Amino acid sequence: MKIAVDGMGGDHAPAEIVRGAVDAAREYGVGIALVGPVETMEQELARHDRSGLDIELVHTSEYLLEGEPPAYALRRKPNSSIVVATRLVKDGKADAVVSAGPTGGVVASALYILGTLEGISRPVAGGAFLGFAPNTVMMDLGSNVDCQPHQLLDFAIVGTVYAQKMLNIQNPTVALLSIGAEEGKGNEQVKASYPLFQKCGLNFIGNVEGYDIPSGRANVVICDGFVGNIVVKFGEALGRNICQWLKDKLGGRLPEGEVKEITDSLLLATNTADAVGGGPLWAVDGVACVSHGRSRHGEITRAIGQAKLAVERDLVGSLKAELAAARRKLEIPGI
Amino acid sequence: MKIAVDGMGGDHAPAEIVRGAVDAAREYGVGIALVGPVETMEQELARHDRSGLDIELVHTSEYLLEGEPPAYALRRKPNSSIVVATRLVKDGKADAVVSAGPTGGVVASALYILGTLEGISRPVAGGAFLGFAPNTVMMDLGSNVDCQPHQLLDFAIVGTVYAQKMLNIQNPTVALLSIGAEEGKGNEQVKASYPLFQKCGLNFIGNVEGYDIPSGRANVVICDGFVGNIVVKFGEALGRNICQWLKDKLGGRLPEGEVKEITDSLLLATNTADAVGGGPLWAVDGVACVSHGRSRHGEITRAIGQAKLAVERDLVGSLKAELAAARRKLEIPGI
Repeated sequence: MKIAVDGMGGDHAPAEIVRGAVDAAREYGVGIALVGPVETMEQELARHDRSGLDIELVHTSEYLLEGEPPAYALRRKPNSSIVVATRLVKDGKADAVVSAGPTGGVVASALYILGTLEGISRPVAGGAFLGFAPNTVMMDLGSNVDCQPHQLLDFAIVGTVYAQKMLNIQNPTVALLSIGAEEGKGNEQVKASYPLFQKCGLNFIGNVEGYDIPSGRANVVICDGFVGNIVVKFGEALGRNICQWLKDKLGGRLPEGEVKEITDSLLLATNTADAVGGGPLWAVDGVACVSHGRSRHGEITRAIGQAKLAVERDLVGSLKAELAAARRKLEIPGI
Repeated sequence: MKIAVDGMGGDHAPAEIVRGAVDAAREYGVGIALVGPVETMEQELARHDRSGLDIELVHTSEYLLEGEPPAYALRRKPNSSIVVATRLVKDGKADAVVSAGPTGGVVASALYILGTLEGISRPVAGGAFLGFAPNTVMMDLGSNVDCQPHQLLDFAIVGTVYAQKMLNIQNPTVALLSIGAEEGKGNEQVKASYPLFQKCGLNFIGNVEGYDIPSGRANVVICDGFVGNIVVKFGEALGRNICQWLKDKLGGRLPEGEVKEITDSLLLATNTADAVGGGPLWAVDGVACVSHGRSRHGEITRAIGQAKLAVERDLVGSLKAELAAARRKLEIPGI
């Protein structure tokens, strides 16, 4: 298996990216196609022992900068490292791409080069975002706002495959996020989606409320990207606030090390996505993994590990099959 | 000033309600019209020293039960204590009504008897819901889903008056809750509301994100009741989860009393609405205060204090004036 790695993407590129890729090659036994200016890449590689590792260099001198509008950057820089890395997947020369570059650029590359699965117009963002509910996946977390019921259903299928393949949950429970548990409760979007969810063949358990997100009542919680993004960011900020407050409260009462241990694990539990550092872009026709810009080598190694898992478990193939099955059940003609 | 108190509303009615009302009469020097079965009320009053207090009894033998569908209950029980108490306000015999009865019943009574302010179809729910951001009010928190831009604007006006009158903030900053700070970011609802907010004469600072709710970046955060309800309930549940987690983490390291002090104050900071026990129903044409069903005498006394403040500061009159001013600015004809 070969993973294309964007050697120039991320706040700590190229050093931390190259180090993370070398570690992943050794740890997971995967081949790496390292994309970037070949001299820079060689310089970084020279710092590490790469004996016996399958690391190939793919040269390009362009790369995206944080803050460049993604679509504009892609037009201006058609040979940027993320584009070249993504094209390796499209051309069958790599099985997956991993980048810690600007998220907009990674998403745009995946969108324009790999495309999305049939009937889905944008990638779906989401995952297990709360340490207190490790078996609860929420989708969408910001890619898709103003969603139609059939889009929410697509998120539910993506979430189900996520929970099955990445969290090993056999028959994940699926719920619509709403403001009351009963069928009639919610906004127009939720009310229109409910009957669709009942018929689609997923393990739909009805609506859940905001209360139920941390409780783990459902394995897959579905909302549009507007609601999801606000909830996740609010939870992260609240977690950080509480950590700060706890530092003040516990300081002087407990040894400094213990306070740090407690607040660090609380931060991890409430800022999980941030801590884990991204994951696969869902509903893209290929495996593309985003790592956050602040990633150090450890996160890059983990992201490459996630990409390997996604390839091995045939996420994309499973997702296509599940989407087709749900559409057959709902008698939606193939698009 | 006279406050009508629903003597039979709440899990601990009548004992705790009557005690709270007696305390409020003494503490705030307000007159109380205690509504309920006169014998039961007399029996409870006999337990307290009411000398020199202005406490009047208004008899009715009917009252609502938790779980009764509000509209149905009001039709079936036209003389229930909450209805009679609300009518005292409508008829000018009381200045405000306070109830810890079923929220649906209190809202329905306010809606049908007092009515809402011109151009607003339902009461607006909201307030300062997070101890970490005591000067941030969020509206709506669940009464109004699927909102039009002009409704969000009404919430913003309500929130501004709330912050001015109840939190003593002179020129409260107002923001739309969205998924990006820039003007173009958000769903259709937010994008359509933005220009309206710019023109309305409020102290509008643009969009804020989920991150910004606990930071207190804006004094008034505006969203529809679907989003608001999910965010608040999620925050409350996350707070409770963290308290439980902290109990385990701190148990054995700190004395039990200190652990309890820390988790109690965290619970108060994250479940503020619950702890404070309600407040005025906004955009109703009269002062109606809801207290939560679990209220004990202390909460009832505080709720009566809030009602007194709302009357003294002429919340309803200020709100009418602000709504009219904003509509003039936007050239919306009086409805």
